[in-house]
Amino acid sequence: MTDSTVIALLSGGLDSATAAALALEAGHRVIGLSFDYGQRHRRELEAAAALVTTLGLAEHHTIEVNLASWGGSSLTDAQQTIPTEGVEEGVIPSTYVPGRNTVFISIGLSLAEARGADRIVLGVNAVDYSGYPDCRPDYLAAFQTLANLSSKVGREGHGPQLWAPLVTWSKQRIVEEALRLNVPIEQTWSCYTGGEQPCGVCDSCRIRDQALRAAGRPDLCSSGR
Amino acid sequence: MTDSTVIALLSGGLDSATAAALALEAGHRVIGLSFDYGQRHRRELEAAAALVTTLGLAEHHTIEVNLASWGGSSLTDAQQTIPTEGVEEGVIPSTYVPGRNTVFISIGLSLAEARGADRIVLGVNAVDYSGYPDCRPDYLAAFQTLANLSSKVGREGHGPQLWAPLVTWSKQRIVEEALRLNVPIEQTWSCYTGGEQPCGVCDSCRIRDQALRAAGRPDLCSSGR
Repeated sequence: MTDSTVIALLSGGLDSATAAALALEAGHRVIGLSFDYGQRHRRELEAAAALVTTLGLAEHHTIEVNLASWGGSSLTDAQQTIPTEGVEEGVIPSTYVPGRNTVFISIGLSLAEARGADRIVLGVNAVDYSGYPDCRPDYLAAFQTLANLSSKVGREGHGPQLWAPLVTWSKQRIVEEALRLNVPIEQTWSCYTGGEQPCGVCDSCRIRDQALRAAGRPDLCSSGR
Repeated sequence: MTDSTVIALLSGGLDSATAAALALEAGHRVIGLSFDYGQRHRRELEAAAALVTTLGLAEHHTIEVNLASWGGSSLTDAQQTIPTEGVEEGVIPSTYVPGRNTVFISIGLSLAEARGADRIVLGVNAVDYSGYPDCRPDYLAAFQTLANLSSKVGREGHGPQLWAPLVTWSKQRIVEEALRLNVPIEQTWSCYTGGEQPCGVCDSCRIRDQALRAAGRPDLCSSGR
């Protein structure tokens, strides 16, 4: 075990659970941070709580920040329909939540600074991930510059480091790493809808299930639950 | 009236009220955004609500985001003492809240994107303002870069613009502008403590009162209320 602390943004989904597991494997003390932001799939917060126990995180905070107050996304506005027809190249889907990752990483910075954490580990992934602007490497690099300027310690040039180990990985590689790290995939929740079982047809279910089948684990697909 | 919408981060204090009044004077439709972040001086939220009415803002949102969950500041941790001995050169005071401005501006970006607002007006001020790292021009410039990369519209290079009209002003100039703009200074709340009346000795009261006296309005000082 290293003596360093890492904040893991933990949505309850497969990607962030895998990122947290990588931080644990590297010997860090990991503090989980989840968000109740008015998402239709609040079900994912139950998954996050279960993952905290199974993975063995040191602490877990769930912060309420109601981005559904102003809607602007099919993920937070029940009047809008979650798309089920698959991802379209070059188009930002309606499930994009304005400012979401920026808000989450900012709150992560606050916790990191309060706890003296060296890093914030993120499950963001630019390759398979539906063209959200706030999952790309140049976005993360700009945030690192901001983190260095914003924090108390950053005045000496080293704010908490943003660590996005999956950012260039394919979803299949993420699944393979999750399996290697014994991430309890069956406890994770990726579906955008708020049902009792994953829908199997939203972008998130489609991308996940395709990768699970490619990794030889169709039994973990939405349809198999 | 222009057809453009501006988000005003509104703490309830003098600076953000003056910034919002400048946006109104410029003819913008102004939406106020306030934060219940676990501050000891929640009293400021009553001031924000009163200012929304008096200034005539178009909408007002108050978002809960409990940064007091992890403390790290005398403003959010009742176990710590608010300093009353005056500002010390080059030292970040204990009232600094880790990540606070970054969290607030991020949530402002979310609202701006959802409402199609062109700008976010901020009352931040680097000169008099106690050496907080997240009130400086280079911090704001880094945030602008991030805003351009993070938002849906920013993919074409123009995210919501951060507008900090007071950033280089002295507190006395802010007071003079507030008086010129008929900002109801008596409705604003700047004190860090949570009492019924401003304490007159915290950094925020000291800086404000000094400027009010310099502007010839000692009647508006904490001690005069």
